[in-house]
Amino acid sequence: MSDATSLEARLPVRRAGIDTYGQAVLYLHASCPVCRAEGFVALTRVKVQCESREVIALLNVVTGDWLSPEEAALSGAAWNALAPAPNALAKFAHAEVPESSHALHAKVMGSTLNEDQFRSLMLDTLSGRLSDIELAALITACAGHRLTDAETVALTRAMIDVGERIDWGEGIVLDKHCVGGLPGNRTTPIVVAIVAALGYRIPKMSSRAITSPAGTADTMATMTTVDLDVPTMRRVVEREGGCLAGGGRLQISPADDVLIRIERPLGFDSEGLLTASILSKKAASGSNHVLIDMPVGPTAKVRSAKAADTLSKRLVHVGRELGLNIKVHISDGRQPVGWGIGPALEAHDVIAVLENRFDAPRDLRERALEVAAGLLDMLPYAQAGSGRRLAEEALTSGLAWAKFLAICEAQGGFRKPGRAHYVEPYLAPVTGYIHHINNLLLAKIAKLAGAPLEPTAGVFCTLKEGHRVERGTPLFYVHARSPGELKYALDYVRHHPDVFSIAAEPL
Amino acid sequence: MSDATSLEARLPVRRAGIDTYGQAVLYLHASCPVCRAEGFVALTRVKVQCESREVIALLNVVTGDWLSPEEAALSGAAWNALAPAPNALAKFAHAEVPESSHALHAKVMGSTLNEDQFRSLMLDTLSGRLSDIELAALITACAGHRLTDAETVALTRAMIDVGERIDWGEGIVLDKHCVGGLPGNRTTPIVVAIVAALGYRIPKMSSRAITSPAGTADTMATMTTVDLDVPTMRRVVEREGGCLAGGGRLQISPADDVLIRIERPLGFDSEGLLTASILSKKAASGSNHVLIDMPVGPTAKVRSAKAADTLSKRLVHVGRELGLNIKVHISDGRQPVGWGIGPALEAHDVIAVLENRFDAPRDLRERALEVAAGLLDMLPYAQAGSGRRLAEEALTSGLAWAKFLAICEAQGGFRKPGRAHYVEPYLAPVTGYIHHINNLLLAKIAKLAGAPLEPTAGVFCTLKEGHRVERGTPLFYVHARSPGELKYALDYVRHHPDVFSIAAEPL
Repeated sequence: MSDATSLEARLPVRRAGIDTYGQAVLYLHASCPVCRAEGFVALTRVKVQCESREVIALLNVVTGDWLSPEEAALSGAAWNALAPAPNALAKFAHAEVPESSHALHAKVMGSTLNEDQFRSLMLDTLSGRLSDIELAALITACAGHRLTDAETVALTRAMIDVGERIDWGEGIVLDKHCVGGLPGNRTTPIVVAIVAALGYRIPKMSSRAITSPAGTADTMATMTTVDLDVPTMRRVVEREGGCLAGGGRLQISPADDVLIRIERPLGFDSEGLLTASILSKKAASGSNHVLIDMPVGPTAKVRSAKAADTLSKRLVHVGRELGLNIKVHISDGRQPVGWGIGPALEAHDVIAVLENRFDAPRDLRERALEVAAGLLDMLPYAQAGSGRRLAEEALTSGLAWAKFLAICEAQGGFRKPGRAHYVEPYLAPVTGYIHHINNLLLAKIAKLAGAPLEPTAGVFCTLKEGHRVERGTPLFYVHARSPGELKYALDYVRHHPDVFSIAAEPL
Repeated sequence: MSDATSLEARLPVRRAGIDTYGQAVLYLHASCPVCRAEGFVALTRVKVQCESREVIALLNVVTGDWLSPEEAALSGAAWNALAPAPNALAKFAHAEVPESSHALHAKVMGSTLNEDQFRSLMLDTLSGRLSDIELAALITACAGHRLTDAETVALTRAMIDVGERIDWGEGIVLDKHCVGGLPGNRTTPIVVAIVAALGYRIPKMSSRAITSPAGTADTMATMTTVDLDVPTMRRVVEREGGCLAGGGRLQISPADDVLIRIERPLGFDSEGLLTASILSKKAASGSNHVLIDMPVGPTAKVRSAKAADTLSKRLVHVGRELGLNIKVHISDGRQPVGWGIGPALEAHDVIAVLENRFDAPRDLRERALEVAAGLLDMLPYAQAGSGRRLAEEALTSGLAWAKFLAICEAQGGFRKPGRAHYVEPYLAPVTGYIHHINNLLLAKIAKLAGAPLEPTAGVFCTLKEGHRVERGTPLFYVHARSPGELKYALDYVRHHPDVFSIAAEPL
């Protein structure tokens, strides 16, 4: 017998025109008969049903006059999940207690969970049956050292299970991942081009930026189409060996994306969750040999050699349990990589390296070669140490650049990244040597200038730690789409002169 | 140097007319120059400043036309916190990382915190600098057995410190508390009347219902004014020895109220947090001898004798550290107490007991006498076991009723609780013996009928476990303000006939 009480309460639904960043919110007027009849109050979790679809949404009660008592409004996320037909009526009921709440409770109280329990949790995470505060509780209950290795394996398998899996058939499928936190570290397009140019399969999926000024998908989107579905991606990889797709339309470990939405603002680094997040994406996307670039530095995601060591061990161990060959490449995460920070500015750096231009940023080239070499050295029949030579040959010969253009063509055509209309330098306030560059502040300036939403916006800086600057010469340039944004980013720098630490003595 | 970037962005603020139940939400239009300039996106935590006041609010981005790009709107909670003057302009900036985030991070990672760290956490909890998901993380990090006794003491002291404290001067100050979960268990007004009639001080503060059909403050509000400030409460207690105030206007352990807002939907019972919650309120309100009524049953808050035992020990231990004399009274929490469930219906039960009416519910009378006796036996010079006799005398002599009326008079005057316009019975579907009454479902029916917002709404039921019923005779009555709500609650019962388990054999 279904909940017949909800049969009586049907209302037309419309978009509220309120962006709640992925949170499903339902707006009902305080005088709405449904509120009264169902005993709904603000923050009640309501199951909204429309034909065969449903969404669990958080109720906000409206007393203003923008909503009539005879209708319901939905936030963007709720609207997309429900996808109501025109003039469709929705019905409303209290959301049932999610099936996984026993498992959640057990984990919160300190129990060890099995794969079935984690699968139930991931299903409810994905469907929105667990609320944001319940997700925060789950993340906390798994934080610190509260996930055993066996639980990490179980959680990773559960994350894989609730999404799509891509099967590339027999043979080696390469992949790389960067643990992140380093502006401008845009090695992926170069690595994919090198590896695919050498004839290996590397079907790379990347994400858009969440808190940074650019993600690989943002940078690639300035040069080609990245929003591929699985059949298109498969066609590109079959033709070119590699691809540079965004993950937006793919349901690869989608529960992880929901957890990340809560983890980011919480700012916890939890070894177990991070491992499950990285490896579930890799396993579900069908790769089997993965190099993980792990920049270590005071403002990177991994902050100490010790943290890098324990995380590496966990990644390799859990990977092995899942049938993945994992290698961790520890790199220097102290200062930005390349010259541009922002989607198009990073794309120009990538192109300069691939074109072997004399003015290409050397650190980006070197890092890309290191990662590509590390990946090639993982191949079962690789000659020890031959990866570096192969990677350099592919790059300097122009084969990598040709492969990059071919991949872009296969994805829908290559186009040159744009340039910002407004560019202004920030001048060094003193003469001296650069002792330290604050990654976090530099990324913030790029974001204030409009990155990543505005692809051409960002920061351009050719200086590195140890370089000497003269007072009054440019330290870096701010790129923006409008004079207002330009001014805004520069004002911020003027009030935060500690982006660059400049001292009289050499480093 | 303050954040000068925010100087440029000032907007008029208005009420959004959206109730988010205590959550401070800021609404800005997507085209609002402040959004773009500050780099705000949906769910950014924004510091809104207006003259000397500020509030940390969660941003929702509006694309609809009910908000202009040239203004900002605030949810009820945010509006009340900011209290802007007419035509005042507000400025907006990214909220700083809260001071307590180190302590939060440490607790999440499994560290033991000291009192200073808990105080920092409680200050940020109270001010809204910690977001809901951060509060959920804190609660989870303190759940299970993750708070030591010493930490529980430290947390309780921190909760007391960040609120007001009432000092009643020298001498004994009595109080009682019920751990909850039992509909109709409205002993407090009777206990206070008895104890105060005997000449002892019992300045009782009670809360409104949060998830139940009635709290003591809801029931008292049907008979007198409960929304007292501290000076009024002090006057009432000085004159009558006791009071029956609501806690709404008092800042007694206010950080606990914020945590409760998150704990309720999470539904965790955590011994340490529950202990801190109860004892911080008691200590801050100035009582020193407290009897805690702990109903134990499968649908009560405390579900087993073992759980009752460990919670009791923790309450007594932490109480001692805080200078409180705590006694725990374990009671039967299997079925509802009294006849009415809902504010006014429970008030009628209370009055019937106080008036010694022949038709008063005996179980409520007995429970109130037990609690009053237990409290009186805590008095330093009490003769062992004399409490029961004293309590009965105060009640049967009519002294307690007179004291109750006097307290109501002092609080603003006594009035009779109302009666619902619409009353309809639910008839027994079969003949047999009542084996079990589901507290949770019965409470839900009372809420569907309109309680506690509508004071006269609720459920009236004189049957108890073991009673025999004939098919077609009333099992209980639903009271409602409107025919619609009446029908709605009765429909629910018809679809959930398991509220009462009726079997052919006697219990």
